[in-house]
Amino acid sequence: MVVVLRGGVPQEKIEPLISWLKGKGLGVREFHGQEQCVLGLIGNTAGVDIEMLRSLDIVESVGAVSDPFKAANRKIHPEDTVVSTQGTGGGSLGGGHFALIAGPCSVENEAQITLVAQKVKEAGATFLRGGAFKPRTSPYDFQGLGEEGLRLLLEAKKATGLPIVTELMELRSLPLFEEIDVIQVGARNTQNYDMLKELGRVPNTILLKRGLAGTLKELLMSAEYIMASGNENVILCERGIRTYESDYSRNTLDLSAVPILKRLTHLPVVVDPSHGTGKAYMVEPMSLAAVAAGADGIMIEVHNNPAEALCDGPQSLTPEQFADTARKVFKVREALA
Amino acid sequence: MVVVLRGGVPQEKIEPLISWLKGKGLGVREFHGQEQCVLGLIGNTAGVDIEMLRSLDIVESVGAVSDPFKAANRKIHPEDTVVSTQGTGGGSLGGGHFALIAGPCSVENEAQITLVAQKVKEAGATFLRGGAFKPRTSPYDFQGLGEEGLRLLLEAKKATGLPIVTELMELRSLPLFEEIDVIQVGARNTQNYDMLKELGRVPNTILLKRGLAGTLKELLMSAEYIMASGNENVILCERGIRTYESDYSRNTLDLSAVPILKRLTHLPVVVDPSHGTGKAYMVEPMSLAAVAAGADGIMIEVHNNPAEALCDGPQSLTPEQFADTARKVFKVREALA
Amino acid sequence: MVVVLRGGVPQEKIEPLISWLKGKGLGVREFHGQEQCVLGLIGNTAGVDIEMLRSLDIVESVGAVSDPFKAANRKIHPEDTVVSTQGTGGGSLGGGHFALIAGPCSVENEAQITLVAQKVKEAGATFLRGGAFKPRTSPYDFQGLGEEGLRLLLEAKKATGLPIVTELMELRSLPLFEEIDVIQVGARNTQNYDMLKELGRVPNTILLKRGLAGTLKELLMSAEYIMASGNENVILCERGIRTYESDYSRNTLDLSAVPILKRLTHLPVVVDPSHGTGKAYMVEPMSLAAVAAGADGIMIEVHNNPAEALCDGPQSLTPEQFADTARKVFKVREALA
Amino acid sequence: MVVVLRGGVPQEKIEPLISWLKGKGLGVREFHGQEQCVLGLIGNTAGVDIEMLRSLDIVESVGAVSDPFKAANRKIHPEDTVVSTQGTGGGSLGGGHFALIAGPCSVENEAQITLVAQKVKEAGATFLRGGAFKPRTSPYDFQGLGEEGLRLLLEAKKATGLPIVTELMELRSLPLFEEIDVIQVGARNTQNYDMLKELGRVPNTILLKRGLAGTLKELLMSAEYIMASGNENVILCERGIRTYESDYSRNTLDLSAVPILKRLTHLPVVVDPSHGTGKAYMVEPMSLAAVAAGADGIMIEVHNNPAEALCDGPQSLTPEQFADTARKVFKVREALA
Repeated sequence: MVVVLRGGVPQEKIEPLISWLKGKGLGVREFHGQEQCVLGLIGNTAGVDIEMLRSLDIVESVGAVSDPFKAANRKIHPEDTVVSTQGTGGGSLGGGHFALIAGPCSVENEAQITLVAQKVKEAGATFLRGGAFKPRTSPYDFQGLGEEGLRLLLEAKKATGLPIVTELMELRSLPLFEEIDVIQVGARNTQNYDMLKELGRVPNTILLKRGLAGTLKELLMSAEYIMASGNENVILCERGIRTYESDYSRNTLDLSAVPILKRLTHLPVVVDPSHGTGKAYMVEPMSLAAVAAGADGIMIEVHNNPAEALCDGPQSLTPEQFADTARKVFKVREALA
Repeated sequence: MVVVLRGGVPQEKIEPLISWLKGKGLGVREFHGQEQCVLGLIGNTAGVDIEMLRSLDIVESVGAVSDPFKAANRKIHPEDTVVSTQGTGGGSLGGGHFALIAGPCSVENEAQITLVAQKVKEAGATFLRGGAFKPRTSPYDFQGLGEEGLRLLLEAKKATGLPIVTELMELRSLPLFEEIDVIQVGARNTQNYDMLKELGRVPNTILLKRGLAGTLKELLMSAEYIMASGNENVILCERGIRTYESDYSRNTLDLSAVPILKRLTHLPVVVDPSHGTGKAYMVEPMSLAAVAAGADGIMIEVHNNPAEALCDGPQSLTPEQFADTARKVFKVREALA
Repeated sequence: MVVVLRGGVPQEKIEPLISWLKGKGLGVREFHGQEQCVLGLIGNTAGVDIEMLRSLDIVESVGAVSDPFKAANRKIHPEDTVVSTQGTGGGSLGGGHFALIAGPCSVENEAQITLVAQKVKEAGATFLRGGAFKPRTSPYDFQGLGEEGLRLLLEAKKATGLPIVTELMELRSLPLFEEIDVIQVGARNTQNYDMLKELGRVPNTILLKRGLAGTLKELLMSAEYIMASGNENVILCERGIRTYESDYSRNTLDLSAVPILKRLTHLPVVVDPSHGTGKAYMVEPMSLAAVAAGADGIMIEVHNNPAEALCDGPQSLTPEQFADTARKVFKVREALA
Repeated sequence: MVVVLRGGVPQEKIEPLISWLKGKGLGVREFHGQEQCVLGLIGNTAGVDIEMLRSLDIVESVGAVSDPFKAANRKIHPEDTVVSTQGTGGGSLGGGHFALIAGPCSVENEAQITLVAQKVKEAGATFLRGGAFKPRTSPYDFQGLGEEGLRLLLEAKKATGLPIVTELMELRSLPLFEEIDVIQVGARNTQNYDMLKELGRVPNTILLKRGLAGTLKELLMSAEYIMASGNENVILCERGIRTYESDYSRNTLDLSAVPILKRLTHLPVVVDPSHGTGKAYMVEPMSLAAVAAGADGIMIEVHNNPAEALCDGPQSLTPEQFADTARKVFKVREALA
């Protein structure tokens, strides 16, 4: 339920209403917009007398939110969320702050990650991505450098100032992620509810990928799991879905997810055209398309030597290709500014 | 099979080779590029002595085309096809000629189609679309004005000069389409092979929509049916595919089809964000995305009064919304020029 | 809308009601069950005074049918339809009459079709299937014997007495199908609405396949097109749908279609495990499963020499394998009788 | 790689070969069939001299296994695996031992679980299922009784002797599952690789559900994760996949998974028609179909009062319906014995 207050109501008149609502066992999200304050009520509102609420002089209107997602709902929180990673030394994302996230699929060694980090920074990247723990379909494939990979990413951050995005695969390694700016939840863990609840209790920003064949409602419900546990720094990521079309692409990148999610939620939405297509030659056109569709950021795999990458080489750009794509991305953003 | 000839070989040296190949029962497509001539061989090439071909002094190289589509294959015809509708009084599409196709889902009456045609032309449209024969899931729904609808479209063409795009639903009405510039094959007829063969024998341009849940290979094979019968004026159209995501969109618009098709074929590729999303609010972002991804054109439903449209109102733009979208489309094209 | 009449109402009291309803512009389907008569009203019922209807002494109840399919709806026609092909000399299907339909993908020559027809008849088949006109993805593949194929099928019918099931690919060849017992509409024509309307005006039975990626509602709506034009002899056929699973099967045979369709409609439902799986080794287990799920018939491809079949060899059974499968099919039917 | 030994080779001649292969860093699975012994080599076989192997007098043949799954592969382990839960006091499953697994979606209280356990046992169930930890799409829904639920299940086991199947949602609760006969990995955790690795180190049997939209290859690779860590007691479970068909069923139960998996792997395959359809009325026909298709077991939700179940009521059978279905299941098995 959403309670929209009249413009100009002073905070001391709002507090008693909030206390009273909390006394009914409800969670209350207070949202101060430029002109008015909105209260989002989460939980069972059956015990609230709506007519009484409407009759209060500080209340302008009361509305229902029938969607199953509440904290993530734009109806409850109308303005764009701007996610900040300043606590861990990073930048902002969402609400006009565009993020260009780049880096290798896997961290392989110090020389590689440092080189790629510098190159992508020069080309305009604002975040460094890289995998330390890797989900692989086969138990016999390279599974990532693990803890050592995280250490190398933090070295690269020190060298370049770029905040880090990297994936958590299971809760037992969570303590190692303390200094990581953005913890990624991969497509195979989008509905790992225990992991989501736990990530609701950390101060890091969470980048939540859409499931391999996940609906947008499921993605929002998974964000809701994190937010309901207290962490509102959540970024949603479209990364391609599974369809019957597999001759020419690894996944079907669903760019309609961008306008749909931007309408349904206030959380920032980024697009991963590398995993979303699985082919380097499609990364540029789909990056430009994602930006034109309104994405708050894009995440691109860049490798100094794609042909010898330990993982996902066929979808990685070289630093030169990335720089070229980045230039065009900024042009499209300017054209639509 | 593709035979690449050396640069500068005169036509009189090429002719005997072509005659000889045709004598083997093969179709031969002759493609004169800026520097060299390429011969595309279609049919069973088992009887051709490749080593002999390679040893000819006018031949540079001989390669196999393992893809099942031949005439539509960029390997056989490396340069972009530019489709022209001048025979019927229209313009060009493909190879840098961008098409903005707009108009109502159904032609309803003269006033409606004339008004919409003028409005979309003012906003920059280069083709007028409108349905006279309508495929409807239910036999009890409005099935279009039929022949009268075609007549009204041709009136609107006379008034505005815009060439017409409209759908053919079955072969018996084909004689009525003589003056129609672009005959659309709808998503339910993409694999209506008898229709495709027959459209291979008409002079009109064909706009071939991807099937409801069609693969890109199937789309190319359907184009091949038309081309194998002699009509090379074929435009491919991405219009959204069926996936499990149906809460928030009617189809999943697959924009990765654009870079994939542009790589595989020389035929022009347009995108229909109206049917591809089913929601007016998504038409603009997905139009911009399609253009950024490299589409040769976009096709948008515009209705003077979407709320009262006899068909597909929820996905139609008003003329004003269309003009706004068109402006941004041109900006994105400029930015990437 | 459905009007359920009281038990024992004589026909002369029903006629005036029907006339009055028809006078309102409605189609009226009269269904005489064992105890009562039900009238199914098709068309716009907005002008009917429901309260008045309910107050009539011959009316027991009046109910809405919110489903978009009417003539095919079990609510309007509660008892199973039994399709008969006696007009063309064949047998029955549905309502307890189980059909075992077998034969080659394509008719290749007289010896082949006669041999296969005799073998499958000996094994218990009740219908002979065989393709004369073949839909092929590639224009360069074998397209069937055409009219000659139909002639050979009718020869085989004469020799064995088995009624024939064969596919119509386009309306212009419809006159050739006069003596064909069951005209098949293939998966690529399920939504070829003009073909469906025309098939509503012929006396033959129609076997309507589910679309390549068609929903069950679409299948029912396509049946509705045929029935709304006057032909109620319609058989529905599940033949596998397109999913993301393609490593090990050609399609995903959706056997849940059987109980769902049997609940929604009174039309008979058959299953095609040959196209539905694309692999001979799966035909037997999926045939048994289809029968256990309640199918009114199964349709199996049988070829005297699958390795050399001109079409779909990998999914064809030999006559011996078919006989073995047929034995088990009958055992499962007995077990559940 | 698979090394097939000649019949009658004594174990003392096999041991040195195994030692030698292990010395090359390979895992070796020894499979003693009725006539011969087969050695399955897992790992990088590039360093093995195949010609030398073939020349050994105890070796009959050496073959490659190109599939990415090895331990689960029927080529490496040709005979059916029979999973036993005797260590925890339960029965067998696979290789002719049919399992009828039944019980409520969620354990709600002692009276409920005891009543249902007794009823399903009387009807022929051989395992009791029930959820203690529940994965729910919404953080605001009932999440299961947790540890208390496990305790109640073990009480019901004591009372009825039925071994228990219940779901593990995250590794931290694994120590509570010591006495649980079969630990279920749910569809949202099928690719939770860290969980799979850990379950490779417990003595319990694992029932691994196919992912929400998982391929069969992915399911086998997930089984491979468990087996590669040492636990070979793995049961595979088809539970319906996500398709575009959602009007009439919750998922599309893919029964072709049964013959496909039985061909590819030696592991037992069970089917869950309750989650696979989401509708009680479909559970019986799809159970019978699963058995006819060759499933080693079926898993059915049974609730004493479906209308008031805290979870998944619409798909639960009453004990009476279950008894009826069980009777028919046994009839179909007999008919095909």
